[in-house]
Amino acid sequence: MKINVMQDVLQANDKIAEDNRQIFRKNRNFVINLMSSPGAGKTLLLEKTAEMLAGKLRLGVIVGDVETTRDADRISKFGIPTIQLTTGNACHLDANMVAHALPHLKLDEIDILVVENVGNLVCPAEFIIGEDHKVMILSVTEGDEKPLKYPLMFHESKLMLINKIDLIQYTNFNLDEAKANARKINPDIDIIEISCINGTGLDRWISWLTDHYQLKQKGLSNA
Amino acid sequence: MKINVMQDVLQANDKIAEDNRQIFRKNRNFVINLMSSPGAGKTLLLEKTAEMLAGKLRLGVIVGDVETTRDADRISKFGIPTIQLTTGNACHLDANMVAHALPHLKLDEIDILVVENVGNLVCPAEFIIGEDHKVMILSVTEGDEKPLKYPLMFHESKLMLINKIDLIQYTNFNLDEAKANARKINPDIDIIEISCINGTGLDRWISWLTDHYQLKQKGLSNA
Repeated sequence: MKINVMQDVLQANDKIAEDNRQIFRKNRNFVINLMSSPGAGKTLLLEKTAEMLAGKLRLGVIVGDVETTRDADRISKFGIPTIQLTTGNACHLDANMVAHALPHLKLDEIDILVVENVGNLVCPAEFIIGEDHKVMILSVTEGDEKPLKYPLMFHESKLMLINKIDLIQYTNFNLDEAKANARKINPDIDIIEISCINGTGLDRWISWLTDHYQLKQKGLSNA
Repeated sequence: MKINVMQDVLQANDKIAEDNRQIFRKNRNFVINLMSSPGAGKTLLLEKTAEMLAGKLRLGVIVGDVETTRDADRISKFGIPTIQLTTGNACHLDANMVAHALPHLKLDEIDILVVENVGNLVCPAEFIIGEDHKVMILSVTEGDEKPLKYPLMFHESKLMLINKIDLIQYTNFNLDEAKANARKINPDIDIIEISCINGTGLDRWISWLTDHYQLKQKGLSNA
């Protein structure tokens, strides 16, 4: 008998993800699974997002890291309810880890819940956690060919944020090439160019977030 | 009964890694397992290394990628024997994958074999492949706190290359902080600052490589 361990793992994960999804529906949370390579700028983006959503929509954050609580410490300074998940050696968050975080959040007081995944361009894309959408960040310092080399991440994401646009002049990153590569893998992917340093595109990111939040609310009301 | 799948996997891996190691000893290959985040500059470093070692030591390369043969195509242009391993969904190379590549290389005509791992700061560090040393690249655009957040990679590496030093003025990367963080995890780690764009530190990297190559040759002769 051959046991396909990975298939069993993913099936068990999908079941827990659906439980999470029910909880999010009940609490009317719009949930983003935010993924990228290490150092692509997930945490700084969340700090900017917290600032820009303040007084409009209520943000909550679950942060996954292999070690340290540095990211959660940074985000919680903005008065945002934040849960840190330390994964030990695990290279991604799965639905079960997220499920363990949920009882520690007042979900009925959160509009948008962002789950900041472990910095990794491979494994996080394999695991659904009950999110509405996966959003991924590609920074210009990583190279424009990354969609072809790590296709699953780009295939699974609803939105690609091209970050660190302020650094593009110091790199050989070709924006058109990056977009074409991403669309080869995922023709329908949304793309927004941003910089958390000079503010480029952050208004478009906030619009994307609030538009999709409202879309979910409308869907829940019609259900 | 509880089966620890991961422990079984690692034990099986270690056995194959030891077989690889025997093969490398027989052929007097000095073997580097090169790891980093996606886009930290592994392939460009190998291109520069191929140029600088030309006529001195014979380089061979095994490249692991989730998809595409772009990196192998780049490196083989330098006349270097290069094998591409496409991992599908696997987020790291293991000893068995490397073992499958070895029959396709004329190992007795290679002095230094570099295995370019999948771009990932987590999983590759868990798997030995029969290498003499793990070498990792941290680029300044990723942030100086990474050793604390991804400790295993820094713990397992003999050398940390701090890459993209030419971009440091456009980032908030603190060199002293990065080094201190790495040494908190691994007090004995060697550290070299490099830039493959302006050439900073590449002579030191080549010296490190040739010194450790010679050290292994000496050890093999005395054995």
